Amino acid sequence: MHEVPKLDEAAIAARVRQELSAQRFQHVEGVVKTAAELAARHGADVAKARLAAWLHDIAREWPAERLAEYARRMSVPDEFGDDPLLWHGPVAAALASAWFGVEDADVANAIRYHTTGRAGMSTLEMVVFLADAIEPGREYPGVDHLRALAETDLLRAVAEAIDATISYLIATHRNIVPLTVVARNDLWQKVQQRPRRT
Amino acid sequence: MHEVPKLDEAAIAARVRQELSAQRFQHVEGVVKTAAELAARHGADVAKARLAAWLHDIAREWPAERLAEYARRMSVPDEFGDDPLLWHGPVAAALASAWFGVEDADVANAIRYHTTGRAGMSTLEMVVFLADAIEPGREYPGVDHLRALAETDLLRAVAEAIDATISYLIATHRNIVPLTVVARNDLWQKVQQRPRRT
Repeated sequence: MHEVPKLDEAAIAARVRQELSAQRFQHVEGVVKTAAELAARHGADVAKARLAAWLHDIAREWPAERLAEYARRMSVPDEFGDDPLLWHGPVAAALASAWFGVEDADVANAIRYHTTGRAGMSTLEMVVFLADAIEPGREYPGVDHLRALAETDLLRAVAEAIDATISYLIATHRNIVPLTVVARNDLWQKVQQRPRRT
Repeated sequence: MHEVPKLDEAAIAARVRQELSAQRFQHVEGVVKTAAELAARHGADVAKARLAAWLHDIAREWPAERLAEYARRMSVPDEFGDDPLLWHGPVAAALASAWFGVEDADVANAIRYHTTGRAGMSTLEMVVFLADAIEPGREYPGVDHLRALAETDLLRAVAEAIDATISYLIATHRNIVPLTVVARNDLWQKVQQRPRRT
């Protein structure tokens, strides 16, 4: 194994900028900012949240063939389904290690599952998932409701964000990866099992 | 193995009546009628459709503990999830064999998957699934649209019926079994891949 040098945040941001269009880089900057705020509010590690946010979309603009080839080489698990678009998360987690020396398991999972979610998401995973959905550049019906909910109830905000995605996929007759359904089942179960707020 | 006598339809109906409340028996009669019509229209075996329809809900009113115990003994596959309500299909398929000598695989699958669906449903499975959703006693927003669609486009009607169920489960924050999501992904893929009608 060769050593991968650890980079500081400015160096990582500069490299991310090279990989993305200006528009998507702006989105990533928004996710970094929002993830840091959510992490501070909900007790996740702010530095890890920023790092995962910087790297989450690093393979997002790869052509499907490049994603598919890399995914095959790294054996992306079946749970990510057969749509190459959903492989940019696990591929980015692998690149975080290969290109940037990021080996932290929680950061890797926050990157890996940022599009699909999964059952048993950590606070950091939820923070990055939600930041991706509500960063200031996002505009869609219901986003302001999610932004407000994100300030007080991370678990429920992630559950509602996933359900909004599933509803959109239903309305457009698109594929829904079971991993995402298992994620929202788990989140709603946790919402319902916690003590009621008075 | 002891022999189970084959029963005629009147004898089966009489036994089903014993297992169910008057209201649910009326529902089953509606499913039998609708399944026969859909089978005739879409080229499935009418006798098999009636048989599966008579038996699909035979364990529907069992208490959860009885369902759970029987499900454990017959090893209901994990794909049916952990909600005992979803086990009444596979349990009914087992009872169709044990109580009525019904061994036809297509009839068994139509009973087994009538609540969840699955990827690769046969025409008979789709007929019974849809009949359960649109029999004359059913009343919910969109049911008349599904009834009209069922006359011309079985595949799409089943896809839309499942999506309506998923949307209802989302609206009520209830569990969605991945089997059902895999079913609708498969149906929509088939809808989209078939030659366009002109």
